[in-house]
Amino acid sequence: MPDLRPVLYVTGMMIAALGVIMFIPMFVDLAYRDVSWQAFGVAGFVTTLFGGVMTLTNYAPNARFRARGAFLLTTVSWVGMSIFAAFPLLLSSIGLGITDSLFEAVSGITTTGSTVMTGLDDAPKGVLLWRSILQWIGGVGIIVTAMAILPMLNVGGMQLFRLESSDMGDKILPNAAELAKAIGLIYLGLTVLCAICYMAVGMNGFDAIAHAMTTIATGGYSTSDASLGGFMDDGADLVGIAFMLAGALPFGIYLLAVRGNIRPALFDPQMRAFLLVIVLFITVMTCYLWINSIHTGSNAVRLTAFNVISIVTGTGYATTDYNAWGPFAVAAFFAFMFVGGCAGSTACSIKIFRYQVAFEALRAYLFKMPRQHAVAPMRYGGKPLPEAVVFSVMGFFFLFMTCFAVSAILLSLIGLDSITAWSGAASSIANVGPGLGNIIGPTGNYQSLPDSAKWVLMMGMLIGRLEIVTALVLLTPSFWRA
Amino acid sequence: MPDLRPVLYVTGMMIAALGVIMFIPMFVDLAYRDVSWQAFGVAGFVTTLFGGVMTLTNYAPNARFRARGAFLLTTVSWVGMSIFAAFPLLLSSIGLGITDSLFEAVSGITTTGSTVMTGLDDAPKGVLLWRSILQWIGGVGIIVTAMAILPMLNVGGMQLFRLESSDMGDKILPNAAELAKAIGLIYLGLTVLCAICYMAVGMNGFDAIAHAMTTIATGGYSTSDASLGGFMDDGADLVGIAFMLAGALPFGIYLLAVRGNIRPALFDPQMRAFLLVIVLFITVMTCYLWINSIHTGSNAVRLTAFNVISIVTGTGYATTDYNAWGPFAVAAFFAFMFVGGCAGSTACSIKIFRYQVAFEALRAYLFKMPRQHAVAPMRYGGKPLPEAVVFSVMGFFFLFMTCFAVSAILLSLIGLDSITAWSGAASSIANVGPGLGNIIGPTGNYQSLPDSAKWVLMMGMLIGRLEIVTALVLLTPSFWRA
Repeated sequence: MPDLRPVLYVTGMMIAALGVIMFIPMFVDLAYRDVSWQAFGVAGFVTTLFGGVMTLTNYAPNARFRARGAFLLTTVSWVGMSIFAAFPLLLSSIGLGITDSLFEAVSGITTTGSTVMTGLDDAPKGVLLWRSILQWIGGVGIIVTAMAILPMLNVGGMQLFRLESSDMGDKILPNAAELAKAIGLIYLGLTVLCAICYMAVGMNGFDAIAHAMTTIATGGYSTSDASLGGFMDDGADLVGIAFMLAGALPFGIYLLAVRGNIRPALFDPQMRAFLLVIVLFITVMTCYLWINSIHTGSNAVRLTAFNVISIVTGTGYATTDYNAWGPFAVAAFFAFMFVGGCAGSTACSIKIFRYQVAFEALRAYLFKMPRQHAVAPMRYGGKPLPEAVVFSVMGFFFLFMTCFAVSAILLSLIGLDSITAWSGAASSIANVGPGLGNIIGPTGNYQSLPDSAKWVLMMGMLIGRLEIVTALVLLTPSFWRA
Repeated sequence: MPDLRPVLYVTGMMIAALGVIMFIPMFVDLAYRDVSWQAFGVAGFVTTLFGGVMTLTNYAPNARFRARGAFLLTTVSWVGMSIFAAFPLLLSSIGLGITDSLFEAVSGITTTGSTVMTGLDDAPKGVLLWRSILQWIGGVGIIVTAMAILPMLNVGGMQLFRLESSDMGDKILPNAAELAKAIGLIYLGLTVLCAICYMAVGMNGFDAIAHAMTTIATGGYSTSDASLGGFMDDGADLVGIAFMLAGALPFGIYLLAVRGNIRPALFDPQMRAFLLVIVLFITVMTCYLWINSIHTGSNAVRLTAFNVISIVTGTGYATTDYNAWGPFAVAAFFAFMFVGGCAGSTACSIKIFRYQVAFEALRAYLFKMPRQHAVAPMRYGGKPLPEAVVFSVMGFFFLFMTCFAVSAILLSLIGLDSITAWSGAASSIANVGPGLGNIIGPTGNYQSLPDSAKWVLMMGMLIGRLEIVTALVLLTPSFWRA
């Protein structure tokens, strides 16, 4: 049994911080004279108190995290944050039940962006801001987790991204805190820049800030039922394209670039592969639209660029209903969900580097097969690729697909039609947001699904956001043995 | 560039043998006074002649196959056989074009069982017998390939099944010929037994033989548009259940059992896992039918047993339209396609042992993660599981899923709806036969698909039957380098 005290200590601090943050939407609702300010006030007070008590009763400021503690902390903190994040939504005037509030919070914190809310355009500003804040916190949370914690835990090949300056074997947190500061500043800077750009194309201040937070987090919550499509006339989609991409690039690169170290940033293998894949997908889809006269001219480029980037990065904004683009588009957007952005970014899903590792391994495998005594060294980014990384990546693929299939079958058992079940499962585990089809597609909404389906989807979002392995390892009996 | 002569020599012999076999349906058509006898006569003559010339001009009886030659032989012989197998279908009176004839032949030789023919009940007996013969040959062909060749080539973890008595590193074929004889006898014996059982439940001699051939081959071609469902009243489905299972068990076990070595046969890990999975699937699906009152009593057990076994083993007979059983059944049957039977049987798809290997690897991975210096030895069937096997199995999974996704996207690009495209892709690569939905589902047919879709499906069937890797290795440039 790992020591729970430090886990609860840190989680308590995070929950207390979340509680304090709830006063921001409270003041916004007060400013807009919306009655929901009370919900945020009560929830903020209770959450801060709970988090504070949790911190004090488990006071352990000098505890070090070993591997098991770090696994526990990661999962417990994300689940704990989700539960308290749902609290103001439950209390507010928008009328969400327990399942719906929790769904909205989990979808926010995991930067998924699936929503059960309609009438966003008239919803209380505080609630809208809260949804954006959740994604924004989730986004920076996952960057820090992915850079500081997961590489040390050998999660799904993330050991490739161990920071070379670090020797954190036993003491994950102190370094994580330092890193969080630096990353947080860059993240904040990009968000401010994004908000300014949104304002420059005509959004009002509130919408600009709310969207900037969910763009850079590749989250996808909007302040309008029409998603970012509602702001497209003014060119908001172009700003979205730029900053969704920015959110999906590895933040380690920004860190290097800020320190003046531009060269390695430009030659980062996963960034180059990611941009190449994006360009390829956009080209193919644009040609498809042109050839079939579904959209023409530069409009086709703009629509595909936005929607491809939105789905590949796992953001999930929509500007148009690509379900209407025919079966190829449906199949392609389904496949896009399994791609993902770069490791160490806010993007989700399988992620580009795992494909790079898998294809490199396959190249070596196919090379060796006809000549069984040949040596086929594997490389990634010019460096030798350890077999342990390949093993770990392949295991990740297998687990990802297994979780996806199990979710889809469960959703089918609940009674969802095939398109909704399979695309919903993919969208939740890949933290994308919208699925396919009429119910949960880009013009749809998760509201009408049965509660049991929402619980399956929430599990999927959390497992997906925690890179599958991090969450599943807690389910093995051996984890809990001394 | 590997030496082509021995490859062409052996392929020539196989084609010549195929040509000789064509005279069997010729005599059957003559006996039934059907004009199609001419098609088989002409095709048989030409095929035998071509195969004979190919053998003689590449005369190389003592050549040994090294790895590259064995890869080439496997793919070239299956493709060559498919092409000539299509010839009598093209010439016959049933009116299939080139694409359709080839589709039917590939689907036969690969034991897939997807058909473009309707009006089977009134089709010439010679044609029906030919389709059965193709599956029967394909079935025994894949057993011998899987037992004698693939394990030497390290294809997708098949090295687990190297026969312990063998040291075939350099000389694959002689041993393969010996093995083929022993396996052939067992295969023939099971087929005869199956035919007798079908006759015992009231099938006429012709239908019994035709179905016995496609049952034991887990192929799924029938002599009736209603598939085996047309014979269900008399209990033919129960015979089918027994012999589809027999076809999906590892033939190495029969070999051991025949030699009086029963114990290892009973404790074969993949056989036990396979039977367990089958029982589990049947139980779950039966409960689902009962709970939802879709079918009741023992009828539900009988229908699920038959259809689950038919899909899991990749046979593809149908007795009922499980599309009508609701979304859970559709999702489950879709997932069943990815299971498959035992290695060294006629069954297709990913196969049970690969799941066993993958789960064992994941167990070790999840065990090691929280305690990074721990040792977690992997085992399969009580023996140590080499990392190379795990690697090879994981690569297989990745390639299988990639080929599946690429096929599905291509089929969507051609314009098939989502259900047809994704289930058709799965069904072809897993060599199952029917897909899902109204077009290619258990009550449907591949006839109406565009030719381009049929070509994609044919590629899928061949790649799937050759365990993916065997075919894809030929596409790597390094294969062809000296």
